[in-house]
Amino acid sequence: MAAYRMQKRCDEEAVFVVEGPKMAAEALASGFAIRTVCATAEWKAASGKWEEYYEVSQAELERLSNFKSPNQVWMLVERGASGKWKVESGDFVLALDRVQDPGNVGTMLRTADWFGIRHVVCSRDTASCYNPKVVQASMGAVFRTRMEYVDLAEWLSTCGLPVYGASLQGRPFTELEKPERGVLVIGNESAGISEEVMRQVTHPVLIPNIGGTAESLNASVAAGILMCELGVRS
Amino acid sequence: MAAYRMQKRCDEEAVFVVEGPKMAAEALASGFAIRTVCATAEWKAASGKWEEYYEVSQAELERLSNFKSPNQVWMLVERGASGKWKVESGDFVLALDRVQDPGNVGTMLRTADWFGIRHVVCSRDTASCYNPKVVQASMGAVFRTRMEYVDLAEWLSTCGLPVYGASLQGRPFTELEKPERGVLVIGNESAGISEEVMRQVTHPVLIPNIGGTAESLNASVAAGILMCELGVRS
Repeated sequence: MAAYRMQKRCDEEAVFVVEGPKMAAEALASGFAIRTVCATAEWKAASGKWEEYYEVSQAELERLSNFKSPNQVWMLVERGASGKWKVESGDFVLALDRVQDPGNVGTMLRTADWFGIRHVVCSRDTASCYNPKVVQASMGAVFRTRMEYVDLAEWLSTCGLPVYGASLQGRPFTELEKPERGVLVIGNESAGISEEVMRQVTHPVLIPNIGGTAESLNASVAAGILMCELGVRS
Repeated sequence: MAAYRMQKRCDEEAVFVVEGPKMAAEALASGFAIRTVCATAEWKAASGKWEEYYEVSQAELERLSNFKSPNQVWMLVERGASGKWKVESGDFVLALDRVQDPGNVGTMLRTADWFGIRHVVCSRDTASCYNPKVVQASMGAVFRTRMEYVDLAEWLSTCGLPVYGASLQGRPFTELEKPERGVLVIGNESAGISEEVMRQVTHPVLIPNIGGTAESLNASVAAGILMCELGVRS
């Protein structure tokens, strides 16, 4: 409940929580506006530069934190400090349709960041990129990626790009030409891409499972393989 | 603490916990010996066949379960009912070196299962394949994969296969020939492959990050991309 109230408050104030020295360093370097920093003396000793912060005890940090083992620093960062991002027509775009697990959303952002995919569009019911678990799993990618929450079917219908959709009914990617540009849609962990969004998919694509017996792949793994196959090597 | 005591007891008894109707169905179909089944009346109504079980209330199931929202059934399955697996000389083998996160180990097993990789060797300090979170994330792959915990450096030194190791200092996989057979080593989430194991790696391999800025990929995602690139399409 405390976590829920905290999330609600963050939504109202248009901020998000960033935790731990590594992510805090990313936040401070990102250009995003920092609202509040609470940290232990240990953090201050190690990180040096940031002056305006509240020193807290480990017990106080534990009360603030979303994690079982909070690590030195907790901060509030203002959302939407972007505007420096521009969608180039040649860009490869990642689209998330109803992805529910924050760890998956964060991991997919991290993978997109690795492959130089700068633009991620999400259906409105995809997990919020400001969820603390998304921020954590993204390993800083939230600070470097332009994310938008949109009516995804509508966005796809007007984007003017070929739309690849991960689907167990698709064609193996080995049979597809690598696109110059396009959108890759990843669907919900158990239900896949919604019907409405699937109607906008021009190229349903499958990861071939030669000799395998598993029913499906983890959504983050499938997204990683397809970003690599479609996005990078073209 | 309860979870710790349960895990210790399971180790002593050489059993492991399987939860939820989907994984229970996999267990019942697997040929592994079932020791104990505790389930709600709802599970019995839906699953039908399994006669010898203890009916429990939702509250009792919650006390047994490792998860916040336990789902109908909890069972103990005997370990090591294998013997039906045989390592073929042409096999592709996945090797895990000190992978700590049970979710990652389970996800990698699931991916291996998708790609028809039947044999997984693990360093002794890799998360146990009988950890409930590994079982869950594997989506049944634990029942279909031959897993061994070994002195990994020693195993690699005598396996007679080319050894590929995921490494940020490796050569891009795009520059490597796809092997007929081999071993793919995935290292610890933050520290990578240990020095001792790295000495056995004949082909350090990198996932190229053209245009990207992330420091690294999630271990499960990297493993998925490399299994696909090295294991499948050869």
